[in-house]
Amino acid sequence: MKTINIIGSGNVAYHLLRAIEKSTNYKIQNVAVRSLEKPVDFIAADLMVLLEDLKPAAITLISVTDSAIAAVSEKIPYTDSLVVHTSGTTAMDVLNDKNRKGVFYPLQTFSKQKEVLFEEVPLCLEAAEPNDLNELKLLASELSNNVFEITSEQRKSLHVAAVFVSNFTNHLYAIGNEICAANNISFAILKPLIKETADKIRCLSPKDAQTGPAIRGDQKTIDAHEQFLTNPIFKEIYKLITQSIQTNV
Amino acid sequence: MKTINIIGSGNVAYHLLRAIEKSTNYKIQNVAVRSLEKPVDFIAADLMVLLEDLKPAAITLISVTDSAIAAVSEKIPYTDSLVVHTSGTTAMDVLNDKNRKGVFYPLQTFSKQKEVLFEEVPLCLEAAEPNDLNELKLLASELSNNVFEITSEQRKSLHVAAVFVSNFTNHLYAIGNEICAANNISFAILKPLIKETADKIRCLSPKDAQTGPAIRGDQKTIDAHEQFLTNPIFKEIYKLITQSIQTNV
Repeated sequence: MKTINIIGSGNVAYHLLRAIEKSTNYKIQNVAVRSLEKPVDFIAADLMVLLEDLKPAAITLISVTDSAIAAVSEKIPYTDSLVVHTSGTTAMDVLNDKNRKGVFYPLQTFSKQKEVLFEEVPLCLEAAEPNDLNELKLLASELSNNVFEITSEQRKSLHVAAVFVSNFTNHLYAIGNEICAANNISFAILKPLIKETADKIRCLSPKDAQTGPAIRGDQKTIDAHEQFLTNPIFKEIYKLITQSIQTNV
Repeated sequence: MKTINIIGSGNVAYHLLRAIEKSTNYKIQNVAVRSLEKPVDFIAADLMVLLEDLKPAAITLISVTDSAIAAVSEKIPYTDSLVVHTSGTTAMDVLNDKNRKGVFYPLQTFSKQKEVLFEEVPLCLEAAEPNDLNELKLLASELSNNVFEITSEQRKSLHVAAVFVSNFTNHLYAIGNEICAANNISFAILKPLIKETADKIRCLSPKDAQTGPAIRGDQKTIDAHEQFLTNPIFKEIYKLITQSIQTNV
């Protein structure tokens, strides 16, 4: 069994831990947390250590807030190990030079309350050394069927795209939810539509899948919708995306 | 077998026709099209007629562009029948008074190139007369397991919500696609994320499901993303939805 250290206890750390625990050739050696005073419910007590007490492992996964990655990697109390971060936006080279560098970015939206099929999660890998890339590929291919080599530059653009298709999309769901709630309609009535909209682009390009008043140029409906919306920022979003549908892509 | 007339040959007409053809107690009597010179490939030749030649049926479904509904309903060559439209935004009372009025609104995104599980499509019903509402319920419950009574006022708000969660969401997918294409990344890598984002709100509220730099208040990442985006309208959408996540819902 190869050993893995995880540093962090957020959503990504949680799902990585779960996936690695289910693997056959890897085991979690330790999870480094900020304080042992505040136990983290999903981490077994005997796995938890402070960062300064972490012992070397085959791979160390840093899964903390982007802005803390550099400092955390500097505080790792060992050298010449393979240390990777899991961030979509952070360049590989912010990692401290005392260890070998890489990136292990799972391109998925993770919440602790929702299990995911980890074997479907795209894992975007990068490493400074070819041997280390192979190490990461071995781990990644045991956890997922979707493994990609992605440069720091590509990863940056992927992360922006991910914000649009996931974080922003979820916010549009939240707006739909608000509109339903304000009009005494169950949000459940929109769920088949949400599902089908996501499902459609499995076989159609988003361009071919586009429907609705904006792409039809149905100005009467657009005007009625804009008039209906009283929340000024929702109205602004309506106008802007309508304009974008009509002019872009 | 009860008879159904459909007026129109667009995406909604296509999927309604397919669903009704599969039903056991209803059959398509005729489909009224604009011109018999231009055959519509999904309509059997012997079903197609011109509007002026349409004969009365148990239910007549008008599935044309919103702005044409009033005029089309006026040209129907019979009276005292149940005539309903399938529009999300149009009030029931735009239908001509010479027939009994109702609405049969399938809340789904329809494209001819993509089959849907019609039994999951929410059907939103309204009728001026209780007997007619029952007629519509009988048809609806044979086509779908999701049948709702929705007033014209509620339907209007539902349609606005649907534009956000479906048309606008699809446009965010299109933006993701553009960003990938511009950076030599396959759009396929985003598909598990799109799927999971839609799947998540089956068990979490959109508010609880929200992740990403905006909700985390990760200004460094937000700044980097805004700088990355060169398309001015994509940049504007990024700013506006980020602001909306941080201030609303």
